[in-house]
Amino acid sequence: MRCEIVAVGTELLLGQIVDTNSAWLGEQLALAGIDHLFTTTVGDNRDRIESVLRTALDRSDAVIVCGGLGPTQDDITRDVIARVMGVELKLDDEVAERITAMFSARGRRMPASNLRQAEVPAGAIAISDPQPGTAPGLICPIGDKVLYAVPGVPRELRAIVEGAVLADLRRRSGSTAVIQSRVVRTWGESESGLAELLGGRIAALDAVGNPTIAFLASGIEGIKVRITAKADEEATVQATLAAEEAAVREVLGDLVFGADDETIEASAGVLLQEEGLTLGLAESLTGGLMASRAVDVPGSSRWFRGSIVSYASDVKHEVLGVQEGPMVSAEAVEGMAAGACKVLGSDVGLAVSGVAGPDEQEGRPVGTVYIGISMGGEVESTYVRLPGDRRQIREFTCISAFNWLRLRLLDRARARARQLA
Amino acid sequence: MRCEIVAVGTELLLGQIVDTNSAWLGEQLALAGIDHLFTTTVGDNRDRIESVLRTALDRSDAVIVCGGLGPTQDDITRDVIARVMGVELKLDDEVAERITAMFSARGRRMPASNLRQAEVPAGAIAISDPQPGTAPGLICPIGDKVLYAVPGVPRELRAIVEGAVLADLRRRSGSTAVIQSRVVRTWGESESGLAELLGGRIAALDAVGNPTIAFLASGIEGIKVRITAKADEEATVQATLAAEEAAVREVLGDLVFGADDETIEASAGVLLQEEGLTLGLAESLTGGLMASRAVDVPGSSRWFRGSIVSYASDVKHEVLGVQEGPMVSAEAVEGMAAGACKVLGSDVGLAVSGVAGPDEQEGRPVGTVYIGISMGGEVESTYVRLPGDRRQIREFTCISAFNWLRLRLLDRARARARQLA
Repeated sequence: MRCEIVAVGTELLLGQIVDTNSAWLGEQLALAGIDHLFTTTVGDNRDRIESVLRTALDRSDAVIVCGGLGPTQDDITRDVIARVMGVELKLDDEVAERITAMFSARGRRMPASNLRQAEVPAGAIAISDPQPGTAPGLICPIGDKVLYAVPGVPRELRAIVEGAVLADLRRRSGSTAVIQSRVVRTWGESESGLAELLGGRIAALDAVGNPTIAFLASGIEGIKVRITAKADEEATVQATLAAEEAAVREVLGDLVFGADDETIEASAGVLLQEEGLTLGLAESLTGGLMASRAVDVPGSSRWFRGSIVSYASDVKHEVLGVQEGPMVSAEAVEGMAAGACKVLGSDVGLAVSGVAGPDEQEGRPVGTVYIGISMGGEVESTYVRLPGDRRQIREFTCISAFNWLRLRLLDRARARARQLA
Repeated sequence: MRCEIVAVGTELLLGQIVDTNSAWLGEQLALAGIDHLFTTTVGDNRDRIESVLRTALDRSDAVIVCGGLGPTQDDITRDVIARVMGVELKLDDEVAERITAMFSARGRRMPASNLRQAEVPAGAIAISDPQPGTAPGLICPIGDKVLYAVPGVPRELRAIVEGAVLADLRRRSGSTAVIQSRVVRTWGESESGLAELLGGRIAALDAVGNPTIAFLASGIEGIKVRITAKADEEATVQATLAAEEAAVREVLGDLVFGADDETIEASAGVLLQEEGLTLGLAESLTGGLMASRAVDVPGSSRWFRGSIVSYASDVKHEVLGVQEGPMVSAEAVEGMAAGACKVLGSDVGLAVSGVAGPDEQEGRPVGTVYIGISMGGEVESTYVRLPGDRRQIREFTCISAFNWLRLRLLDRARARARQLA
């Protein structure tokens, strides 16, 4: 089964927006085990959209067309599809009713042009569920092939593709193969370091070909180890992924901080809650980035109290009570961490100070970063040397600091477990 | 002159990376006044790359092929181009020498496969300057058409396209036209509100066709008004842009906060410096986002002192000295703003408190946001109702708060100017 993607929109060709939909769709098709050999981008022009759709239908079994389904004059995808199908557009009463109801529920006047979105090529099926937006998706059978039309708004596109489109594609492909991935997230080793540690696993898997392992350096999100498995049954895929995840975790140990969408902040937050502790931050070079990541964790109000962003040096002295002396130093971050606990009333204080660049500071080179932790009345600090530009150094500081906090909390939990045993 | 783009790489089809090159190239072509009607993405497969290149050369005058020029077995773009040209690959001595020299300058052993990159289709010209990477770009004349091959690494692609490729395209198109844009950045009116205000200008420009005006809602970056001008001489283009920018600023007045890359934080920072004032923040729902934006402004250490991220309510009371009572209120943000000045030792305090969602808070609906300012010993506050999800509400809060600060600083500067007059 071959499926290709056609992205419609003059704004894509002009470079006014970057097309992130095609990459997302490509990933979904790969995971569904469907071959995807071409993606074409074309502007809002009837003849050119038609020619691109005909070429795509010639060489593939299925085509996903994204965009051009809105209510304005520029939105011509459904007209062109009707032309390619050789049919007329007809008003779909159910869709029309849904769109009208959506506007009246919001107490808004509906411009008449919105009913254009309820026009459906004869013989096509409107996808009405799930339906976060007004434009419905369309399933358009053309001979033994099929064309899916989905809105260009990423949130709407994803909902419709994850629902009706992938299910229909799977049914048509007759393939019962299920392909799924799991991401194991790490910090503390380079990509090549991880590859070396996992060398034995990778060699064993290469011999069988399933599951597979790949690495992806993802900045503030850490270095990802992606495990992909394929089988006839979802239960088998899940079991394979679980077994391989366990094997990878066994080898990598504390380098692993989470799986799939779990961030390092979330993982530190879970440990803080297990230990019954709250966190306060003192940030210098990260300038609020660490706090904004903590706030993004759902439910973080249970463990996160706040942050003192001390950009000016005297804020470190006056608010956090740091002693005079070099600010890029073990003494400074230890003082900041203790100060964060005191000022913010938190059990744990986590502090960073360092040189984001572009210039060196206090004679210390760009990338020099100190991390301090205050916990249970004791303060300690560590030192890292980070690569990259200003933005990267800030992001690496953030993940390095939360990672060190995570490791200290793990130590604490283990020490307590030993005492209990 | 029509030029189309072909992006080569199986990793693009699989969605492992998002293709940002095509959007950047699209923008360059638009600014160069060259029509760009199609972009096609294809995997690392000889037959399919060949078929896509032939289709592209059929319907366009020029084709830019990105990617597949590296040293590995997967990198087959130059082989396929030679096949399309009907010629052999030959080693280009000059390129071979440059690649060898590059490795020895870095004191690194050169894998033999790197010399593959010095192979050039007979009749093609290797682009060797500017040359940040090892793979050279290629100019390949095919009849009266042309095919350009450029590396997929964004930095290398941009250097080669900005240099040789655009110059060659301009020469071939015979167009001496220069097209440039300027962005005027605004906050305080919707896209349709701006269109209404600028209705007169737009009607006048539509009659002439040059320059043109377009709107682009850009989240935390505000709503952009993009002016695009075309002329034979760069000086004329610059003069047209300057005149139109002045006309737009005249109509929009204080809605305009900057041009091109100037953020609202940077614009507020300029005013703070002119007034000789420093800024301290007190952030609740933005959780450090405002501070991290301030820190990103070059030279912000001259006016930015820091931020108190008070995520827990009692931090607002204990650190900032806010009175008991509802936290999403005028009284709370006024207290926070005054507290920020006091704690951080700043001349101006800017504070935000509100409901980012997903749930309402203190009986106030999602999107309710208060902004407080303390300046010269006086505190005041304002109220906004913002749309969107959690992330959008945080971003809109950030730009709304910095915008209100900017407007208060403008008032202050004008009052002083009147006193002096």
